[in-house]
Amino acid sequence: MFSNTRRVEIEWGHCDPAGIVFYPRYFEWFDASTAHLFAAAGLPKPELIARFGVVGFPMVDTRAVFHIPSRFGETVEIETRIARLGRSSFEVEHRLMRGEKLAVEGFEKRVLVRRAADGSGIEACPIPREIKEMLAG
Amino acid sequence: MFSNTRRVEIEWGHCDPAGIVFYPRYFEWFDASTAHLFAAAGLPKPELIARFGVVGFPMVDTRAVFHIPSRFGETVEIETRIARLGRSSFEVEHRLMRGEKLAVEGFEKRVLVRRAADGSGIEACPIPREIKEMLAG
Amino acid sequence: MFSNTRRVEIEWGHCDPAGIVFYPRYFEWFDASTAHLFAAAGLPKPELIARFGVVGFPMVDTRAVFHIPSRFGETVEIETRIARLGRSSFEVEHRLMRGEKLAVEGFEKRVLVRRAADGSGIEACPIPREIKEMLAG
Amino acid sequence: MFSNTRRVEIEWGHCDPAGIVFYPRYFEWFDASTAHLFAAAGLPKPELIARFGVVGFPMVDTRAVFHIPSRFGETVEIETRIARLGRSSFEVEHRLMRGEKLAVEGFEKRVLVRRAADGSGIEACPIPREIKEMLAG
Repeated sequence: MFSNTRRVEIEWGHCDPAGIVFYPRYFEWFDASTAHLFAAAGLPKPELIARFGVVGFPMVDTRAVFHIPSRFGETVEIETRIARLGRSSFEVEHRLMRGEKLAVEGFEKRVLVRRAADGSGIEACPIPREIKEMLAG
Repeated sequence: MFSNTRRVEIEWGHCDPAGIVFYPRYFEWFDASTAHLFAAAGLPKPELIARFGVVGFPMVDTRAVFHIPSRFGETVEIETRIARLGRSSFEVEHRLMRGEKLAVEGFEKRVLVRRAADGSGIEACPIPREIKEMLAG
Repeated sequence: MFSNTRRVEIEWGHCDPAGIVFYPRYFEWFDASTAHLFAAAGLPKPELIARFGVVGFPMVDTRAVFHIPSRFGETVEIETRIARLGRSSFEVEHRLMRGEKLAVEGFEKRVLVRRAADGSGIEACPIPREIKEMLAG
Repeated sequence: MFSNTRRVEIEWGHCDPAGIVFYPRYFEWFDASTAHLFAAAGLPKPELIARFGVVGFPMVDTRAVFHIPSRFGETVEIETRIARLGRSSFEVEHRLMRGEKLAVEGFEKRVLVRRAADGSGIEACPIPREIKEMLAG
């Protein structure tokens, strides 16, 4: 499956009074990491919309497990990969590494959505074969 | 001029490793305070859009002066008032009080915008007299 | 088990380009909700530190399930309760309600920590009986 | 005077329902940019603390002027420079560029602080000559 790695520098404002990253920030970074994974696979969001009529891939379920904290001034790496491709949903896994150490694991289940045919909002849609092939990488 | 006061509880995640509010948070709260001021004046955003064809009131210039810090567990009050009503721009002032003490002052210059007549984006628009009257309070 | 409910007003800046709450914000709110639950049980953080020598209750595992989105201008309610009290860990559950509808569920596993006896950092500590009784409500 | 430039990628979660960067985010980035400027000048925060007994350089006054908005998927550059070095305060200016266009200007006045001699908190301290030389670059 397709994967992508990017670096994040931990800034003062990412950290809480205990001096460690305030954990909702990890979810911000994981969300961006999934967007970067899609872009790296040749599927940046504007492309998804223009070529496939897709509105987005909202989160339906997410989890994070925290092994060791990170601090201001450190640079961490986030390894992101597609873990499962379903009919209209898919799963993403993130491993945030502090050097050689696994610091945080993130898990996401998202669903591909498009405008509903009856104009009443959005609806889950089957993941097009072409997208599947790009994400299977 | 119209004014409005609201309370904000300072949470752990609003604070930085020095144990005080990370200052961009004050801008988040001031932005919300301006929205609450409009709502309190009878001009919630959906109303603005539906009745006046207005798209919003983007910020063009903002400033904050920090007198004393605030910490996790405290509750502060933000007093917000319209300071000036111009042709298409207006100014807002915020006073964030920690008890009797003035902790932070905020200043905003915003401009009312609508969809451009030629469909090319947005443009500044004169503030309708009715809105002026409601904000003059 | 002890529970607590609080309201959150959804501000413009909490929402993303799809017009719905950017999901890391829910984790910010859940974190604050757990702090408010402790405070409501008579255990505000400064009290925890002063009376019990506790440093805090860092997150070790958290999850959220998203049922329906929320939008700018809405007010939601977060019901928070202690779901399990273990030896040194405990679990918290949040139900974010949009009117009568369950919008988001949050799950947390946290652990109580104190300064390590050998001064080398922090360590998990047994939850004192008195704290257990207050949280058992 | 010393200056430093860094890039910021604009993520989905940085943007508001109008599809543009929610302006408090610019202040987050400017704060980090000032920290990066110090680090680039050979004065990372831990160094400042260890070598000079300094606690930090809290903000006393900040302002931003917004010329053009930025959107999800864009990469911007922030040029940061020391604009003035006073006795214990200093000023920083940021220019956030969207390609060739000046999108946002940021201004900061900060003050160098150390622990007060009488142990009662923090106090402004004269900027050491060595730090001045490094920032004068």
